[in-house]
Amino acid sequence: MKFYFASAIRGGREKVNICIKINEILEQYGEVLDKHVADPNVNNLEKNRSFEEIYNRDINWLKECDIVVAEVSTPSLGVGYEIAYAEKLGKRIICVYDASINISAMIGGNKTIELISYKDLDDLTKKLIYTLNN
Amino acid sequence: MKFYFASAIRGGREKVNICIKINEILEQYGEVLDKHVADPNVNNLEKNRSFEEIYNRDINWLKECDIVVAEVSTPSLGVGYEIAYAEKLGKRIICVYDASINISAMIGGNKTIELISYKDLDDLTKKLIYTLNN
Repeated sequence: MKFYFASAIRGGREKVNICIKINEILEQYGEVLDKHVADPNVNNLEKNRSFEEIYNRDINWLKECDIVVAEVSTPSLGVGYEIAYAEKLGKRIICVYDASINISAMIGGNKTIELISYKDLDDLTKKLIYTLNN
Repeated sequence: MKFYFASAIRGGREKVNICIKINEILEQYGEVLDKHVADPNVNNLEKNRSFEEIYNRDINWLKECDIVVAEVSTPSLGVGYEIAYAEKLGKRIICVYDASINISAMIGGNKTIELISYKDLDDLTKKLIYTLNN
């Protein structure tokens, strides 16, 4: 099983601990193609790459993956773009978000997305594992 | 000419004056299908609509429009989603952003998007009109 993990980078890194946990869980089920996204140091890792290089690499990973898992508590153009692109490719899409956040209608009102709201790290862990097992 | 105008709503309204100006310009060229997006009061206007209602309405407008114009200085899941969806539909896409902002690689590295960076309102006005005339 190959995963593409999407989370805000330039938009804010408030959820980095959640992202690290999601990656740990996904790695129990398969390979995370873009695991650098959960790295607290991601901006440094990407600083020498051009926009076009990042775009082409990420689109290729989206095509290669089986499932997209996105953390959508933090607004992000890239994550929104990747979700619609994955939908076009017919990928399974799981979006997780902090239950205290008012998410975008384009995510919350989209029937092709499996949504998981979480109260805390334990709640997320339990719900994500349940979803991946089903 | 029909326009779909995309800008952050839940993600932040820092650019609302820019959005109002963009709408004024677009209305000289045709109809803005979703002109409520530039309304400073947009959250109140939308508060009684369900996510699914907003999603379906916005997707129908995206299908109906000729050109998508997006303000992408503020991170937004909805705007990112709409840009990829518009790309799938083969629409012309113009993204404008504050030149001082580090935009997403999924926008900046995407060759199908016409990008306009602006220094201020006058600069944006000049460049957007030039782009719409060409």
